[in-house]
Amino acid sequence: MTHSQRRHNLSSQIGAAGLDAMLVSDLVNVRYLSGFTGSNAALLVFADDRPPVLATDGRYRTQAAEQAPDLEVVIERACGRHLAGRAASAGVQRLGFESHVVTVDGFDALADEAGGAELVRAPRTVEALREVKDAGEVALLRLACEAADAALADLVERGGLRPGRTEREMGRELEALMLDHGADGVSFETIVAAGANSAIPHHRPTDAVLAAGDFVKIDFGALVAGYHSDMTRTFVLGPAADWQREIYQLVAAAQQAGRDALHPGAVLSEVDGAARQVIVDAGHGDHFGHGLGHGVGLQIHEAPGISASAAGTLRAGSVVTVEPGVYVPDRGGVRIEDTLVVGTQGPELLTRFPKELAIL
Amino acid sequence: MTHSQRRHNLSSQIGAAGLDAMLVSDLVNVRYLSGFTGSNAALLVFADDRPPVLATDGRYRTQAAEQAPDLEVVIERACGRHLAGRAASAGVQRLGFESHVVTVDGFDALADEAGGAELVRAPRTVEALREVKDAGEVALLRLACEAADAALADLVERGGLRPGRTEREMGRELEALMLDHGADGVSFETIVAAGANSAIPHHRPTDAVLAAGDFVKIDFGALVAGYHSDMTRTFVLGPAADWQREIYQLVAAAQQAGRDALHPGAVLSEVDGAARQVIVDAGHGDHFGHGLGHGVGLQIHEAPGISASAAGTLRAGSVVTVEPGVYVPDRGGVRIEDTLVVGTQGPELLTRFPKELAIL
Repeated sequence: MTHSQRRHNLSSQIGAAGLDAMLVSDLVNVRYLSGFTGSNAALLVFADDRPPVLATDGRYRTQAAEQAPDLEVVIERACGRHLAGRAASAGVQRLGFESHVVTVDGFDALADEAGGAELVRAPRTVEALREVKDAGEVALLRLACEAADAALADLVERGGLRPGRTEREMGRELEALMLDHGADGVSFETIVAAGANSAIPHHRPTDAVLAAGDFVKIDFGALVAGYHSDMTRTFVLGPAADWQREIYQLVAAAQQAGRDALHPGAVLSEVDGAARQVIVDAGHGDHFGHGLGHGVGLQIHEAPGISASAAGTLRAGSVVTVEPGVYVPDRGGVRIEDTLVVGTQGPELLTRFPKELAIL
Repeated sequence: MTHSQRRHNLSSQIGAAGLDAMLVSDLVNVRYLSGFTGSNAALLVFADDRPPVLATDGRYRTQAAEQAPDLEVVIERACGRHLAGRAASAGVQRLGFESHVVTVDGFDALADEAGGAELVRAPRTVEALREVKDAGEVALLRLACEAADAALADLVERGGLRPGRTEREMGRELEALMLDHGADGVSFETIVAAGANSAIPHHRPTDAVLAAGDFVKIDFGALVAGYHSDMTRTFVLGPAADWQREIYQLVAAAQQAGRDALHPGAVLSEVDGAARQVIVDAGHGDHFGHGLGHGVGLQIHEAPGISASAAGTLRAGSVVTVEPGVYVPDRGGVRIEDTLVVGTQGPELLTRFPKELAIL
């Protein structure tokens, strides 16, 4: 889908909501609708067929012309204010704005310039469009997941996961390998958690040294053209103890149940419940303290959230993670996470690194 | 200065402003005042000697207890809302909030819980305190600048800057060397810009290959315990042409003039002007399109901004960059940037890598 088609979809949405135009302030939303990636920008989109206007500052004159050649670009440091004034001059009566992004002080600045136009809250309007990925977005997410898969396979094949190394060394090597395999960057700070540290859901890599018998939990992702992959695998260094096999198989079963529940129209809290129930039934409910998953795309965490308290249903074309975990305090933990596309023929797995218990 | 002393300073400020308490929502400000680094938090600080309250969610129970052992920690996902209610129960009449951070929707949530307490705008109150660094902060900034200095020296000594390599390879090697020399991470995405790319102020590294005769502009920084360094150096690969020497010496002279103007009490726009005038007098005013510098600390860009349009004066104990540039479109550009501490005895240079024109 072209940026122009995305803006057309937004025009339809805001027209249906009784707005004459929408001021987009969130930079990720601006990127989604225009292709422009500068750090200061806003976009004015009309409900009718008047051409949209992109505002940015002088640092980005050349870049804006290159990235958004189909748009009128206005150079103006106070982007949002300027476009609010522009909307008012264009006769806009009801101007939608991103009330979940614009600050209290920022709102006053918009109101100063909006003149006769009424500022109407329109939170998460673009985010709702972004929840369903188009073919180009899925292609980029696939590339990001492939870079992550290839990096982890490379790390394992070269014997990089072994006793004696530190969490930090392994994290750095894995991040370098993602770049070697085509990533533009990393999706987020890589988690490498060994031994008892694996029981901490979001552990930051330390100088802790990997030892035989350790769980090693690795949560990482690659960034390609702005799109994020997200995957977690957990290994055992050397022969696995019974308790390790037990919780590994439990988490694997819960993850399978969660993936099986990914149907268009599924109630989000029930998708979470499908995986959670497996863990609760095994008596480990207290050891799974986070939600089952989340959307991924231009942000590492985006709609939909998949948790016990989530409202709404899953949409075909969403790309989400499924990542149950069992964390036994001071002992160790397992998380298994994939990124998948929700589809009518069942989910498509984008992260394809094997999930069988690997004993290194 | 301890976190407790910082909070005491904030209490004095808000008391003087007629507030009974302040709700701190910005995560960097929360970190500055408490030491807590989680991704969901808020802090309630009273004007009198009642103990402050930190709120965060269940993921961070252990981390909050470790990082902020001197604070009461409340586990509550909706941190700001909860603390607004807590302030109301404590009899607060006038509750300051960060109107430059809290969104329009977020404000409604606070107002719902604030009961009889009036929500009073208090933008950039903590940022103003952060503008003057204490000894502990300067020590961490010094370490960050030392890691960056050592990494660049190492890169040059091992012959890493040479024709035939790509911008991207050099960027990656420099980033790896910063980690080797003690950085926890990088301050921002490293800029390596060779040849005509050096004329783009914020160029992202590409697969462009360095060639003899190129300018190579490198803008990079190390992160140590949350504190950012920022430095730019520009090299010439092989003998420098006359036009290269000319603009290099011009930028060096402007940078010296900017550093010489760093006195406590100096008008910020005049500090910018001191460097800019040197470039304007040489006929290159149109080729220096950005401000002279900015504060650095827990953020890579923070108060004070040093530009032609900046309001206010420089304060003793601020840590700022001085970074003039001359960018000749399609030809090449030079930027020279240091990070310095403003002091009554003259500025202290934290980035010490040599600035003489280095011909590699």
